[in-house]
Amino acid sequence: MTDPLVIFTPSGKRGRFPVGTPVLTAARQLGVDLDSVCGGRGICSKCQITPSFGEFPKHGVAVAENALSDWNKVEQRYDDKRGLKPGRRLGCQATIQSDVVIDVPPESQMHRQVVRKAATERAIEMDPATRLYLVEVAEPDMHDPSGDLQRLQDALRESWGIETVDVPLPVLARLQPTLRKGKWQVTVAIHQAHTGPARLIDIWPGYHEGPLYGLAVDLGSTTIAGHLCDLSTGEVLASSGIMNPQIRFGEDLMSRVSYAMMNPGGDAEMTRTVREALCDLAEEIASEAGIAPQGIVETVFVCNPVMHHLLLGLDPVELGQAPFALATSDSLSLPASDLGLAPLHPQAQVYILPCIAGHVGADCAAVALSEAPNEAEPLTLVIDVGTNAEILLGNRERVLACSSPTGPAFEGAQISSGQRAAPGAIERIEIDPTTKEPRFRVIGSELWSDEEGFDLATAVTGVTGICGSGIIEAVAEMRSAGLLDPSGLIGSADQTGTSRCEPDGRTHAYLIHDGSADGGPRITVTQGDIRAIQLAKSALYAGARLLMDEFGVDTVDRVVLAGAFGAHISARHAMVLGMIPDAPLDAVSSAGNAAGTGARIALLNRASRARIERLVRDFTKVETAIEPRFQEHFIAANALPHATDPFPELAKVVTLPQVSFNTGGGESGPGARRRRRRKG
Amino acid sequence: MTDPLVIFTPSGKRGRFPVGTPVLTAARQLGVDLDSVCGGRGICSKCQITPSFGEFPKHGVAVAENALSDWNKVEQRYDDKRGLKPGRRLGCQATIQSDVVIDVPPESQMHRQVVRKAATERAIEMDPATRLYLVEVAEPDMHDPSGDLQRLQDALRESWGIETVDVPLPVLARLQPTLRKGKWQVTVAIHQAHTGPARLIDIWPGYHEGPLYGLAVDLGSTTIAGHLCDLSTGEVLASSGIMNPQIRFGEDLMSRVSYAMMNPGGDAEMTRTVREALCDLAEEIASEAGIAPQGIVETVFVCNPVMHHLLLGLDPVELGQAPFALATSDSLSLPASDLGLAPLHPQAQVYILPCIAGHVGADCAAVALSEAPNEAEPLTLVIDVGTNAEILLGNRERVLACSSPTGPAFEGAQISSGQRAAPGAIERIEIDPTTKEPRFRVIGSELWSDEEGFDLATAVTGVTGICGSGIIEAVAEMRSAGLLDPSGLIGSADQTGTSRCEPDGRTHAYLIHDGSADGGPRITVTQGDIRAIQLAKSALYAGARLLMDEFGVDTVDRVVLAGAFGAHISARHAMVLGMIPDAPLDAVSSAGNAAGTGARIALLNRASRARIERLVRDFTKVETAIEPRFQEHFIAANALPHATDPFPELAKVVTLPQVSFNTGGGESGPGARRRRRRKG
Repeated sequence: MTDPLVIFTPSGKRGRFPVGTPVLTAARQLGVDLDSVCGGRGICSKCQITPSFGEFPKHGVAVAENALSDWNKVEQRYDDKRGLKPGRRLGCQATIQSDVVIDVPPESQMHRQVVRKAATERAIEMDPATRLYLVEVAEPDMHDPSGDLQRLQDALRESWGIETVDVPLPVLARLQPTLRKGKWQVTVAIHQAHTGPARLIDIWPGYHEGPLYGLAVDLGSTTIAGHLCDLSTGEVLASSGIMNPQIRFGEDLMSRVSYAMMNPGGDAEMTRTVREALCDLAEEIASEAGIAPQGIVETVFVCNPVMHHLLLGLDPVELGQAPFALATSDSLSLPASDLGLAPLHPQAQVYILPCIAGHVGADCAAVALSEAPNEAEPLTLVIDVGTNAEILLGNRERVLACSSPTGPAFEGAQISSGQRAAPGAIERIEIDPTTKEPRFRVIGSELWSDEEGFDLATAVTGVTGICGSGIIEAVAEMRSAGLLDPSGLIGSADQTGTSRCEPDGRTHAYLIHDGSADGGPRITVTQGDIRAIQLAKSALYAGARLLMDEFGVDTVDRVVLAGAFGAHISARHAMVLGMIPDAPLDAVSSAGNAAGTGARIALLNRASRARIERLVRDFTKVETAIEPRFQEHFIAANALPHATDPFPELAKVVTLPQVSFNTGGGESGPGARRRRRRKG
Repeated sequence: MTDPLVIFTPSGKRGRFPVGTPVLTAARQLGVDLDSVCGGRGICSKCQITPSFGEFPKHGVAVAENALSDWNKVEQRYDDKRGLKPGRRLGCQATIQSDVVIDVPPESQMHRQVVRKAATERAIEMDPATRLYLVEVAEPDMHDPSGDLQRLQDALRESWGIETVDVPLPVLARLQPTLRKGKWQVTVAIHQAHTGPARLIDIWPGYHEGPLYGLAVDLGSTTIAGHLCDLSTGEVLASSGIMNPQIRFGEDLMSRVSYAMMNPGGDAEMTRTVREALCDLAEEIASEAGIAPQGIVETVFVCNPVMHHLLLGLDPVELGQAPFALATSDSLSLPASDLGLAPLHPQAQVYILPCIAGHVGADCAAVALSEAPNEAEPLTLVIDVGTNAEILLGNRERVLACSSPTGPAFEGAQISSGQRAAPGAIERIEIDPTTKEPRFRVIGSELWSDEEGFDLATAVTGVTGICGSGIIEAVAEMRSAGLLDPSGLIGSADQTGTSRCEPDGRTHAYLIHDGSADGGPRITVTQGDIRAIQLAKSALYAGARLLMDEFGVDTVDRVVLAGAFGAHISARHAMVLGMIPDAPLDAVSSAGNAAGTGARIALLNRASRARIERLVRDFTKVETAIEPRFQEHFIAANALPHATDPFPELAKVVTLPQVSFNTGGGESGPGARRRRRRKG
């Protein structure tokens, strides 16, 4: 008689096994993804499966009601104590009696997939570096003396195939009492990095349920955002962000590098400050999730090169001057205690993604991991907009990377009415092309300024200024409404037909909101603001254009805007401004906090660490600072949207007025000023 | 025309090389052991060689005066600044012009041999784990961005074949300024253990002469002995010993285990104490050698299992009870900072030899490394005498190991007039077989007590007691002089014919020295002392005998007595006592502090670490506590020299008087006491 046929769903894997084979054993032999922490001892209940009964023409089998063995004592006891869902069995206890179809529910799959909440909906396969294992350790034998640790290592090798395990002294110190308390059965947490030997993180007597927690951190110059994840399910239990307290040493990166240059010990001071903030974040996020921060056994960091160096305690001074040499560019795996992250588990491990170049950091690597331009068929441009823009361009064939010094204008800095994205800041704006009248929305209210109840809704916050996305919309709307000509000049009241275009010295400014009657600010967009945005957007466009040259293309298939900022600007406005190359509007998407998502991927899936390390090595790195063509592209990109590059896709949806306000007297801009000086 | 022939001495390696080949290049290609730290840049002068000229019939060549190139500028400059010995050349500068014979002097050999001062005169081949390397690092290139560390690693790979190097953060933090200060030429200290990745220990701008230092430590229960070595020459620069301050928690190991059991936190207290003492030792020994302790980049420890656990911060409680389970038995490689050894180099590395069993420690492994019974043709018995005796028996075929609980009698403890080996203690004694009169020597004086000037020479120290080696000689001499019968009974004055055999309760004692007239002690050997020595020597003999049973032999070819104590007892006395199995007297030798020598070997030669780890795994471990035959052997070994085993070799040189003092009234010993109690 042939052995019974066993078919697993959803994998479809099948094979014949002798009567009496436990389902877990069959699954392991077939390579079916069925979880187990206790190694089949009926303790952990991770291996739950659901047998199906009846006719399965698709599989060509009929499954009898008694295809699996009856419940045994272990299953009964488990059900009494903790309750098994109807139809469920423990895969390590139920044995095969005749042909059977067995479903492995998602929660029993070790490598289950976690769907990301991002627009792209890509899934993360669970494969965390740190996992729990239940082991039975042989008792000491005077006839064959060996250390307790060596017998634990033997058990790990035999039961779980884990070859060598490094053991920190504080864990080793707890080994002997724990083994005896657990009567030679212990649960161990083992960190198996994608490189290097495994490491014993913790040990508990008997079976320890867990879970283990991990923290993915996007360490930005301004904000530090963390996601606390369950390392077995991948679930995000809490997300939290705090301001980077280093801001007091300088708003942007270069001012922090200057601080380190000018103040002996300044780098160490900034290192201490950011590490303290990370400790605070860990405690805050753990408290939010209702867990002890010591439960966090792994942390992944992504950050730009300056934050990377300051986190590690490396003086960032070399990053402030050509040739922008990183102290180290490779990924780092190190104990969290080396970074003074005291609230975490004492043996917690840190992984930091690789940096790509002196200006292109681990945060950009994380964006690459999240957006995977290297896996795309269409040629994809990924832009992470911040004080520095990181730009990736590529497809399956190759990926190019660069960084472009956009400056802080996109974040509302160096703008006359600019402010951070905070309640009261104008974030959306529309200008009627006929009346030239604006309407806007401020952060903290869903109402437009011309809607009823707006004044009441914004009474507390007021209308205080314009944030980064607001200024971009304002400039784009001004261009679309004919208040701004392609060279970036604001027209006068006469030229534009609206008194909102007010004289402002030798130039003009556009009045968006006058709060002066209530003691609030007059919010205008000045000619200087336009110039600042032009500089920023030219840098961004020139960087993208440089990569397109390098790739040998004039258009791209897809544009992905990453970063918190990218989530708030519309494709149309960005294209009217000429921030991004021309493309169909529906080919432009926002990836949200792609760097944070990349950090989470690296936290939950250790194979992704090897992947991004390989990717980064293979990237073609382009240094904008030394490319003569960057300067050319920069100048040509000064116009709105562009002096020479056509924007045919944009033209299909937006008709930009053909205005020109350059009448000599109204002339402005750096070139004009130079000419004036020469004349004067 | 064929290329010139180059012959190196003393290796005899030869080969033909094109005219103009540097001598260092030729040496490397032939695998000749010629040192270089700077990689052939004419900086380090480690590659000095001596060319020989004239006819060499043995080698079949005639060497012309101009067989090597003329001195070049580099050699001239080196000679001007630092002086080359006559006839010497720099191997990296001198090039081959015609057939030549080249001698590599010992100080230019990287793997030069250091002759040990021990009796066995075995040599240690220099192959330390930590070495200096001069490297030229590529400057950063914006077109091909990479971290400074990655370019350093490239240079190490290309110039020195070192593949991956772990870099601790504090060293990484100094990388960028050091590279720039050294104009991209730096000297690095790299630790390449016999297992695991290499580790960057330190970095200096330009060429750094060194040397690096290592510390070999024999961490005993009573004393801690250290040897400070130059890691390039192997020279011992200073040796120093301090008392183990843990003595205040208990004189012997088991009393320290008890202290840990009875006092919560007692183990941590002892750990702190011993680590502090090690810091003191490092500072003391460095000061003695006139170096900064921070120059010590490596330390090797050997110690018994209890000290091993207390050093590592592991509670030794399991070592105090069957089954005597070690927390870990394998060797350990870890940063010295993990052990709080703050005075050493901040990145100093520690290696601890493996333990053999719960009673047989890393100190015994070190003895095995030093005495190498596994390499011996003759069957060799190695005994390291202490509170516990570690015993090894073996030859090339196999090696057995055990430990035997001899107790502290051999160290002068539990002896009525016993004391530590200190000035004033009787260390040598002879008893005239005719007159039964003793003469002796005390520590601190070379004179015998019957020699002129003895009183004056010992006036300061006095004669204060008997040390361990003294008591062994006393008992053996008493047996040889007929004052003691084979069962261990001391005869009365009547039976022995000397009034020095005084009544002492129901038994007798032998008077060695009466200092009472001058207010000093009366130093006697009592019946109780004899019993204590009998217990100790029976345990030692029984352990050796058990290993001989296991090996299937009745005699051994060689006996090696290791340990400071072993150096002070004579083979004849040990054999009269029956401490060791019968063997020709000239087959018994002392190895001095073999454990300390083993530590030094492991410090200077990393291959020896792999060797001892393999050896220890292959040892047959015998646990005396659970072998029923141990008890039998112990009882039979109670007699002096032995109740049943013949001592034919001893009989050839010593005739022991056939006396018996067991006359009923004078009967003594445990058996006798039991019988008396039953009667009474």
